[in-house]
Amino acid sequence: MPRSTTNDRRVLVIGLGRFGGSLSEELVAHGWEVLGVDSNPRRVQSYADTLTHTVVADTTDDEALRQIGAHEFSRAVVAIGSHLEESILTTSLLVDMGVPNIWAKAINRRHGRILQQIGAHHVVLPEHDMGERVAHLLSGRMLDYVEIEENFALGTTRAPKEILGRKLGETGVRSAHGITVVSIKRHGESFTYATADTVPQKGDIIIVAGKTNDVERFAELK
Amino acid sequence: MPRSTTNDRRVLVIGLGRFGGSLSEELVAHGWEVLGVDSNPRRVQSYADTLTHTVVADTTDDEALRQIGAHEFSRAVVAIGSHLEESILTTSLLVDMGVPNIWAKAINRRHGRILQQIGAHHVVLPEHDMGERVAHLLSGRMLDYVEIEENFALGTTRAPKEILGRKLGETGVRSAHGITVVSIKRHGESFTYATADTVPQKGDIIIVAGKTNDVERFAELK
Amino acid sequence: MPRSTTNDRRVLVIGLGRFGGSLSEELVAHGWEVLGVDSNPRRVQSYADTLTHTVVADTTDDEALRQIGAHEFSRAVVAIGSHLEESILTTSLLVDMGVPNIWAKAINRRHGRILQQIGAHHVVLPEHDMGERVAHLLSGRMLDYVEIEENFALGTTRAPKEILGRKLGETGVRSAHGITVVSIKRHGESFTYATADTVPQKGDIIIVAGKTNDVERFAELK
Amino acid sequence: MPRSTTNDRRVLVIGLGRFGGSLSEELVAHGWEVLGVDSNPRRVQSYADTLTHTVVADTTDDEALRQIGAHEFSRAVVAIGSHLEESILTTSLLVDMGVPNIWAKAINRRHGRILQQIGAHHVVLPEHDMGERVAHLLSGRMLDYVEIEENFALGTTRAPKEILGRKLGETGVRSAHGITVVSIKRHGESFTYATADTVPQKGDIIIVAGKTNDVERFAELK
Amino acid sequence: MPRSTTNDRRVLVIGLGRFGGSLSEELVAHGWEVLGVDSNPRRVQSYADTLTHTVVADTTDDEALRQIGAHEFSRAVVAIGSHLEESILTTSLLVDMGVPNIWAKAINRRHGRILQQIGAHHVVLPEHDMGERVAHLLSGRMLDYVEIEENFALGTTRAPKEILGRKLGETGVRSAHGITVVSIKRHGESFTYATADTVPQKGDIIIVAGKTNDVERFAELK
Amino acid sequence: MPRSTTNDRRVLVIGLGRFGGSLSEELVAHGWEVLGVDSNPRRVQSYADTLTHTVVADTTDDEALRQIGAHEFSRAVVAIGSHLEESILTTSLLVDMGVPNIWAKAINRRHGRILQQIGAHHVVLPEHDMGERVAHLLSGRMLDYVEIEENFALGTTRAPKEILGRKLGETGVRSAHGITVVSIKRHGESFTYATADTVPQKGDIIIVAGKTNDVERFAELK
Amino acid sequence: MPRSTTNDRRVLVIGLGRFGGSLSEELVAHGWEVLGVDSNPRRVQSYADTLTHTVVADTTDDEALRQIGAHEFSRAVVAIGSHLEESILTTSLLVDMGVPNIWAKAINRRHGRILQQIGAHHVVLPEHDMGERVAHLLSGRMLDYVEIEENFALGTTRAPKEILGRKLGETGVRSAHGITVVSIKRHGESFTYATADTVPQKGDIIIVAGKTNDVERFAELK
Amino acid sequence: MPRSTTNDRRVLVIGLGRFGGSLSEELVAHGWEVLGVDSNPRRVQSYADTLTHTVVADTTDDEALRQIGAHEFSRAVVAIGSHLEESILTTSLLVDMGVPNIWAKAINRRHGRILQQIGAHHVVLPEHDMGERVAHLLSGRMLDYVEIEENFALGTTRAPKEILGRKLGETGVRSAHGITVVSIKRHGESFTYATADTVPQKGDIIIVAGKTNDVERFAELK
Repeated sequence: MPRSTTNDRRVLVIGLGRFGGSLSEELVAHGWEVLGVDSNPRRVQSYADTLTHTVVADTTDDEALRQIGAHEFSRAVVAIGSHLEESILTTSLLVDMGVPNIWAKAINRRHGRILQQIGAHHVVLPEHDMGERVAHLLSGRMLDYVEIEENFALGTTRAPKEILGRKLGETGVRSAHGITVVSIKRHGESFTYATADTVPQKGDIIIVAGKTNDVERFAELK
Repeated sequence: MPRSTTNDRRVLVIGLGRFGGSLSEELVAHGWEVLGVDSNPRRVQSYADTLTHTVVADTTDDEALRQIGAHEFSRAVVAIGSHLEESILTTSLLVDMGVPNIWAKAINRRHGRILQQIGAHHVVLPEHDMGERVAHLLSGRMLDYVEIEENFALGTTRAPKEILGRKLGETGVRSAHGITVVSIKRHGESFTYATADTVPQKGDIIIVAGKTNDVERFAELK
Repeated sequence: MPRSTTNDRRVLVIGLGRFGGSLSEELVAHGWEVLGVDSNPRRVQSYADTLTHTVVADTTDDEALRQIGAHEFSRAVVAIGSHLEESILTTSLLVDMGVPNIWAKAINRRHGRILQQIGAHHVVLPEHDMGERVAHLLSGRMLDYVEIEENFALGTTRAPKEILGRKLGETGVRSAHGITVVSIKRHGESFTYATADTVPQKGDIIIVAGKTNDVERFAELK
Repeated sequence: MPRSTTNDRRVLVIGLGRFGGSLSEELVAHGWEVLGVDSNPRRVQSYADTLTHTVVADTTDDEALRQIGAHEFSRAVVAIGSHLEESILTTSLLVDMGVPNIWAKAINRRHGRILQQIGAHHVVLPEHDMGERVAHLLSGRMLDYVEIEENFALGTTRAPKEILGRKLGETGVRSAHGITVVSIKRHGESFTYATADTVPQKGDIIIVAGKTNDVERFAELK
Repeated sequence: MPRSTTNDRRVLVIGLGRFGGSLSEELVAHGWEVLGVDSNPRRVQSYADTLTHTVVADTTDDEALRQIGAHEFSRAVVAIGSHLEESILTTSLLVDMGVPNIWAKAINRRHGRILQQIGAHHVVLPEHDMGERVAHLLSGRMLDYVEIEENFALGTTRAPKEILGRKLGETGVRSAHGITVVSIKRHGESFTYATADTVPQKGDIIIVAGKTNDVERFAELK
Repeated sequence: MPRSTTNDRRVLVIGLGRFGGSLSEELVAHGWEVLGVDSNPRRVQSYADTLTHTVVADTTDDEALRQIGAHEFSRAVVAIGSHLEESILTTSLLVDMGVPNIWAKAINRRHGRILQQIGAHHVVLPEHDMGERVAHLLSGRMLDYVEIEENFALGTTRAPKEILGRKLGETGVRSAHGITVVSIKRHGESFTYATADTVPQKGDIIIVAGKTNDVERFAELK
Repeated sequence: MPRSTTNDRRVLVIGLGRFGGSLSEELVAHGWEVLGVDSNPRRVQSYADTLTHTVVADTTDDEALRQIGAHEFSRAVVAIGSHLEESILTTSLLVDMGVPNIWAKAINRRHGRILQQIGAHHVVLPEHDMGERVAHLLSGRMLDYVEIEENFALGTTRAPKEILGRKLGETGVRSAHGITVVSIKRHGESFTYATADTVPQKGDIIIVAGKTNDVERFAELK
Repeated sequence: MPRSTTNDRRVLVIGLGRFGGSLSEELVAHGWEVLGVDSNPRRVQSYADTLTHTVVADTTDDEALRQIGAHEFSRAVVAIGSHLEESILTTSLLVDMGVPNIWAKAINRRHGRILQQIGAHHVVLPEHDMGERVAHLLSGRMLDYVEIEENFALGTTRAPKEILGRKLGETGVRSAHGITVVSIKRHGESFTYATADTVPQKGDIIIVAGKTNDVERFAELK
């Protein structure tokens, strides 16, 4: 069966722990067809109503993987929780089956590296990434923080005094602080994009973009 | 000893697993003073050079917590990995000591709820949150995705054909797709903010802001 | 379903170990309707004939708790023996279901404190309380001892020489020893209340009320 | 060394768990000299400051028991927590050493029976006894309850309407309800004994004595 | 049902390990009716054809013991292998059921003592007894050895030179060595009793009776 | 070093459990020099005062066995309790070292057979042998019983009526019952050998020798 | 049933791990009839289609072994993986059943020795033997290596310069290096035997036979 | 430090189990310098005298591997016994360090495949390979057997009748059976190569080369 990655809206998710489960539910909510697989019948049972299809299978077994049609998927997520060995065996089998798009969750950096050596296309480190993200929220001034790439971040914070009551285009925040205000949330409203004409009020929450340190420093303003 | 949350740059991090470890390293990198605690000597040892202070201690023990001065911190992170019981006992003790700012990592939603009932101020669910985030990257069109709040998201994607070669202000993307282009990354350069005068070129990567579904749909354009 | 605490004679008892089991049997003996729950089928089986209803269920599971109608009870006892985690999860769920009257058995003081932080209404520490009570019986002079509140106790002891053969009203025990004789048990008879006219005989057993130390000291008299 | 039970204020407590620990602390608080023994060094350590003497020892070993002088005590408490075997072995050794006054904690009725067969003088069942006691407090009307002997109990409850504002001697509670009011606690005061002249007020808490069922029924009055 | 110990040829054997199994087979071979009980189905299965009746039951459970009619036996053997606790619980129950003749196997001396304290009528220590017995066979001169009581033993050995070729009555072994030759086995024949007229030949094997040391010393003769 | 089995009074005992321990103590009591070995330091410690020499060693290790000089002993007992594998490995090594006289304790018949196949010279089955022996004591008429060889046994029993008050030589027990009275124990005295002139009295205890069935049947007489 | 070793093409393979499994498959591929036995049902299942017959059985049990007809085979392989005890018990039973040709896999040398002492006819040590073999391939010059007997080996290597382009019979390798070229593999062809007229070309791979050291040294030539 | 594979006679062997141990000893015997590493101190100790260097280290730890200089070796053998995870982690680290020549032992085929995916240069499957080899020896006619490559094997067997007493060159074995006799071992002598003039005698053992089936069939001749 030929696999057309572009239009294929089916995903194979192996491992229905907290990561795989949340991922699967989010996918289904966005119109994907998800085949959820786990070796633990209780876990599979608890997702039977939510996911498109669910199967109990030992994915470290070549034959079992084929019987669930793993080789026909163009996207697979190896979300196996804590067993390094299972994660590696399953990924190795999917690679040999030629699945063109394999995401794999890693427990630590070396595990991530092995998954890459074996041939996984994307590796995710949830605990590690969330740890770094939360570090930026601890001071209480930043409400959310995402590092888009090395040295470029988006931060959510309260609008500081110096930009209140004036059009953003006239505050000179770009030149003074090296950041751009990209979105704004008025008290009681939802977020919307900011323009040069936007006038921040006291209590507004803004999203700013810029170099990591500039975003950090800007969030320190009161 | 009086605790001044505002200027206190010290954080107590209990649990030096992958989440706590990454968080601590990021904090130190941003100038915080981190006291890292774990009951496992090997883990403590492996962070001895990176963190400001490290201590081996059983934080489920009232006396031990006091000896490391837990009650004098204005910020504490309970990053205890997998032992529900330890996580709950430690959080309960910190609450009774009056630590004003307690972040706690939860394994699942019920665990998170218990930590709140006990009195933790912020609860984080790394596996769960990363699962949801990765769901949006699976199609391969979105390069990064963050949900800032219910129904408002930021997405990183390649600039679609219909906005190439024209000033953003003239493309009408806002009215046509309900999203704003907030940042742009030229081939070979870093990210920078986008303005109405920005002219996207083929291969540029852009960050767009908007309602969750609008961001999703915009990323599907080619 | 509206819950009327006052007239509701139904109790949910979770955990049929020695504490929960004895409690359930005593409740049934006094006309209560008891639904006994345990995750261990053998335990449930052994109470099938004694209690009003018995069910095998994992009470750390939200769905399972609802299926046994836990949210409709106005009284619940979490008598889970030794697993701190199960005890805390179950109590947390009952609190969120709004059960208005939750008794929970704790293993130690910190466990008790966490149950309170979560929202249990009454916490019992059997091992701890019995330990204190037995301490007063060791000398062999006190036959039973209960501390009703801080610094007020009831003690059962043999009538000492100095009050034998006289009306209690004339012995002056109240002024001399700070205690009152509240009940008396004649040899071969049952306990009955004592009056000012009661004349204790050799071998009578009496219950005295008073301050903790006074009761202790009075029991030392021969 | 001759043992004089009467004046000997020394107690050997074997097992420093929750029962043995609470018991030991209460004994020391009342002037007893306590030798606390446990095979677990951490437990012994945690009582080193509170008890008169503490020793780490394996009390299932004849030689070890002699070295701590067990045979010279006139009172011993075998408070060994959960290990039936240890509890039985230790009790058997103490019996053969001739300790004249052995209290032993049992986990269940059969364990209690075996301790008696072996020769323990008093057997205590904390979980079981507390279970029965709490059963009487569940309705919320009884504040405390103690069964002194088969069919004679003391209960603490709020003074019901029908006895308010009149001298107890004139209320006829004894004949009407079969109980005697033996103590009373005025709002904001401590407990004191009740006399025929005592006039209960609204909000007073009283202790009543009587047959089990009479005490139960009286507490139901409003 | 009245129990007549004298004529009752039925035995209850609890525990079908090596000791209990061999004992049961020997009993059946001598015409006894044996009810073999074990909590392990495989063991029970393996004796199903050999013993009169076999049952799988948990004999630490009062109810289970009654269902197999344990209280109607006049002889019971508690041959429970290695679990001290099970052995003690079962014996305690049999004692309380009034079984008049209880044999119990002990693992060590203290275990044996406890079984006696509980009320077992006979206690056997196989490992210990066989250890002592084999000690006497090590020199290679004694072929078998049994200590009938403190300081009286029977030993099997080769007839030493000094008694060969003469009537036993004339050899003076009794006065010279303090032992009596009680049985003799001619080469190629079975054992038979020895008389004063028996003339031992070279190679005969004899059984001698006498004080422990005398038997030992006699066996050293060549 | 040449080994002279005959005069060598040294024994190597490997395994100081109940069998090996009792055996060693008995050997020492009879003047043997015993080197006791066990891999468990606590066991070795507990025999340090009783045995001639004691050593902690892993006897499944060739080198360790040589260091304790195992190859120089002419007698070794492998009394290893419950670990089949250790027992077999140790015995195999001793066989290859050429120890001329190896006794080995077996757990069951197959274990015993393997020890023989490997080359052990004597195999003992304590549980099994004691089981058979006790079978003969259950009726309560036989006080002790030893099967010397197939179909020849010694039994201890009370002297039956029919032989009381007459010289043994005149009772005709041999012809009537096929047994010989070989020893007798007068009330309050020790055992002594019986002669044709011995006159048994009521209450005397006798040892009889004969064919297995004859001894059994004779013991049934009253 | 008489066993004719010569014509009997049936083999009993006990243990279907990696060694036993590969062996069984190879046997079947060469026309043998294989009865594969393992105590693990999953393993047996995975060979159900490949082997002639498969059975789940506990081969440490005499009865079970007979039921599968083990005593009727003339060849048996005890390929039990890692459990020394099972391997020894099974081998002992096969020996006593008189199986004339027993191969047994050993984990280490002592295990191998015990299997021989018990009576196994051939003992194999896979890990050990492969370890030695691989040692000769590490330099990268030898492609394969087998030691046929003490000091005689076959080695596969690339033909060294000094023998290229000439008839083997004229190169004098035998006298110069003490080895014979016994087979040769031309580039792109299969192996064939070498003769005195064979002319090795660059890139040919040859098998040489000779004394261990000579083969080693020859492979070092370039 | 530059690595010269060609002349470097040093090997890093990780894992000193039976495979790694035998391999290391063989290497040392042939003049290699071996650094033996294991995480188990006892194993390292047992090779301390035999190998060039030995180290206790956890080779799944990047830092530990560097400290023993793993990155400076040009040859490494990952001989880790049974822990898939350790084997994979260690191999992954060595690959990333750029060791040019990595041999790795695999437990099964999938394990072997993963080691290749990660980047191991040679993978060995001892149990599997030995299983196949022994299959050819079971008939008893082949004394040794090695498959050099797919469909080319060497077999050791007794010379069959039809080639006895004649020069090999004249027997026509090549054309008749498709095999060549490459070596011969006369009774009482060592192996030597065979020539066309060799005359096999009864009892000679020969090595033949040829296609797998031809070698097999030839060995069947008598």
